[in-house]
Amino acid sequence: METRITKIFHIDYPIIQAGMIWVSGWKLAVAVAKAGVLGLIGAGSMTPELLREHVRKAKAACPERSWGVNLPIFFKFADEMAEIILEEGVKIIFTSGGSPKKYTRRFKDAGMTVAHVTATPTLAVKCEEAGVDAVVVEGFEAGGHNGRDELTTMVLVPQAVDAVKIPVIAAGGIYDGRGMAAAMAMGADGVQIGTRFAATLESSAHENFKQAMMEASPTDTFLILRRLIPARVIVNEWAKTILAAEARGASEEVLINLIGEKRTQLGMFDGDLKHGEIQIGQAVGALKTIKPAGDVVREIVAQYAQSVKRLSEL
Amino acid sequence: METRITKIFHIDYPIIQAGMIWVSGWKLAVAVAKAGVLGLIGAGSMTPELLREHVRKAKAACPERSWGVNLPIFFKFADEMAEIILEEGVKIIFTSGGSPKKYTRRFKDAGMTVAHVTATPTLAVKCEEAGVDAVVVEGFEAGGHNGRDELTTMVLVPQAVDAVKIPVIAAGGIYDGRGMAAAMAMGADGVQIGTRFAATLESSAHENFKQAMMEASPTDTFLILRRLIPARVIVNEWAKTILAAEARGASEEVLINLIGEKRTQLGMFDGDLKHGEIQIGQAVGALKTIKPAGDVVREIVAQYAQSVKRLSEL
Repeated sequence: METRITKIFHIDYPIIQAGMIWVSGWKLAVAVAKAGVLGLIGAGSMTPELLREHVRKAKAACPERSWGVNLPIFFKFADEMAEIILEEGVKIIFTSGGSPKKYTRRFKDAGMTVAHVTATPTLAVKCEEAGVDAVVVEGFEAGGHNGRDELTTMVLVPQAVDAVKIPVIAAGGIYDGRGMAAAMAMGADGVQIGTRFAATLESSAHENFKQAMMEASPTDTFLILRRLIPARVIVNEWAKTILAAEARGASEEVLINLIGEKRTQLGMFDGDLKHGEIQIGQAVGALKTIKPAGDVVREIVAQYAQSVKRLSEL
Repeated sequence: METRITKIFHIDYPIIQAGMIWVSGWKLAVAVAKAGVLGLIGAGSMTPELLREHVRKAKAACPERSWGVNLPIFFKFADEMAEIILEEGVKIIFTSGGSPKKYTRRFKDAGMTVAHVTATPTLAVKCEEAGVDAVVVEGFEAGGHNGRDELTTMVLVPQAVDAVKIPVIAAGGIYDGRGMAAAMAMGADGVQIGTRFAATLESSAHENFKQAMMEASPTDTFLILRRLIPARVIVNEWAKTILAAEARGASEEVLINLIGEKRTQLGMFDGDLKHGEIQIGQAVGALKTIKPAGDVVREIVAQYAQSVKRLSEL
C-alpha cells in the first residue's frame, strides 16, 4: 500500500498508533513499528527524564523502523520535552492540544517530520499554514481530550480533505479494517488508531483497565468537562460525580476540585476503576480481545483489504 | 448497484432520503424516487389530514417508483397516522423515536416493508427482534432528534452490522459519495441522508433556512436539550438561550418553557432564523449549493463510484 502517509513516514501501511497518556510507552510504539506502521510514544503522562528514557529504549530496540513522539503542547513539561526530543534526534513528532505554530518551525528546521492533531476543518488549515507535513483530524468519538465543537470523524474527514492540500490522517472511532477503509474512502491518506492499541499486550494500561476495556459496552463512554476541557472517559463512579455536578451547573472551581490530582494515573495506570479517570474512545465497546499489537496491525490490514474488495464488488 | 437494501425497497441505488420535519413532503420524496432512490415523506410535522394529502399526491405523481413515510412513534398523531398509512396502502414505512414493537407487526401484516431508526447496537438487536426488514442506525452527527448515548456513525455502523443479520442503513453525517462509500465500507447495505436533501429545490424548508444552510460553517450546529430530548440544531439566538440555561443547570420546567410552542415551525418553515428551532445535521457546514434533489442523487452516486475506484487503486 502506498499513500502520501506511507511515504512521508516510511511505513508499510498508513496506520499510526496514537500517542496516549499512561498507555503508549516505547514498548507499544516499537511493537507496532516492527509490524510496519508508525508507533508513537505518548509524552503527556511522563516526566521529561522518563520521556528521554523511553526515546532511548525505542532507539535501541528499533533503529530500523519508524516511530515518534506525541507531545501535548499545553503540558507543563512541553518546552523541556521539546528540547529532549531535539537532543535525542527523534525523527517524527505529533503535536496536539495547542497552536501548531508553537514548535513546528523549530522541529522542521531540525529535519523532523511534523504532524499536528486538530478537530475542525478551519484548524486543519491553520496547521497547513504553520508548515506541518500532515494533519490529524480527530472526531468527537475519540478518547481523551477532545475538541469543543464536537465534530465527528464522518463529517470532519471529508471537509478537512477539501480544505487542505497536505495529507489528512483520520482519527476517532476507527478500530478495525472497516473503519480504516471508511476513512480512506472519505479521502484520508492514513488513520490514527488509539483505543484498539490500548488493549494490547504491549500497552502499559493497568490490567484492571485492560479488563474494563473487554467488558465495556458500546455506550459506556461519555464526554465530560465539556465547558472546561472536554475528555472522553468511561462513565465510572468518579465520572458520574462530574456529570452530576455539570448537570446542576457547577462552577469551574468546583469541577477542578472534583478532578483533583493524578486522576488519570489513578485510573489508567494504577487501575482504580471506581475513582480514577479512565480516558478511552467510544470504540472501546467493540473490543473483544487483548493481543500483541503486531497482531492487531495485521488483522486491521487484512480486514481493510477485505472491506475494499467487498466495496469494489457491490 | 445491488445490495439487500436496493432489493427490499426496489430502488437503483441504496440511498434513502430521510423523512424530516418541515422539509420533506411529497415533492422531495417523489423527486428522489424518480432518480432511483427511496424518498420518505416526513410525517412528524404534519396533521393527519395533511399527511393523507401528501401520500395521495405522491401516489398520483409517482405510482411507478419507491417512496414511503417516516412516522415518529412518540408523535401525538402517531396512532391516527398509522391508520391513514394503512388505509392509503403506503408500501414502505420507517418508524423512529420509540419502540419498534409498537407498529411493526401491524404494518408487516398489511404487507408493508418496515424499517426502524435507532441509535445503539443493542437497540438495533431489539429492532431485529421486533421483525423489521431493515434497521437505520443514526449517529450523533445527525440533525434533529438524537440518541442519548451520543454514539457516532463511525462506531455505530460496524457494531450494528456485527450485532444483527438484517440489513443496516447508516445515517448521520453522510452528505456525499465519499461518506456513502465510507458507510458501505463499514458493512452497511445502504445510507440514509437527511441534511443534504434539506438543501434542494424540492425541499419545503423556508428560503431563509436554505440560505442559512449555505452560510453555515462546519461548527455551527450543536446538540441541545441533552437531558430532556436531545436535538441537533443551528446555534442561533434561541439555541444560545437554551445552552445557557443548561449550563446553569436549569430544570426541565424552565427548559420546556424556553422551548414553548411551534418552535421548529417558526425556524424551519416560517424562516425565523433568530427565534426558531432549526434542526439540521453537522454536515450542514459542508453544503455549497441548492439544486434539484435528482441532481444531488446523481452527484452522490457518481462520487461514490470515484471513491470506490480510488480506494481499490491504493
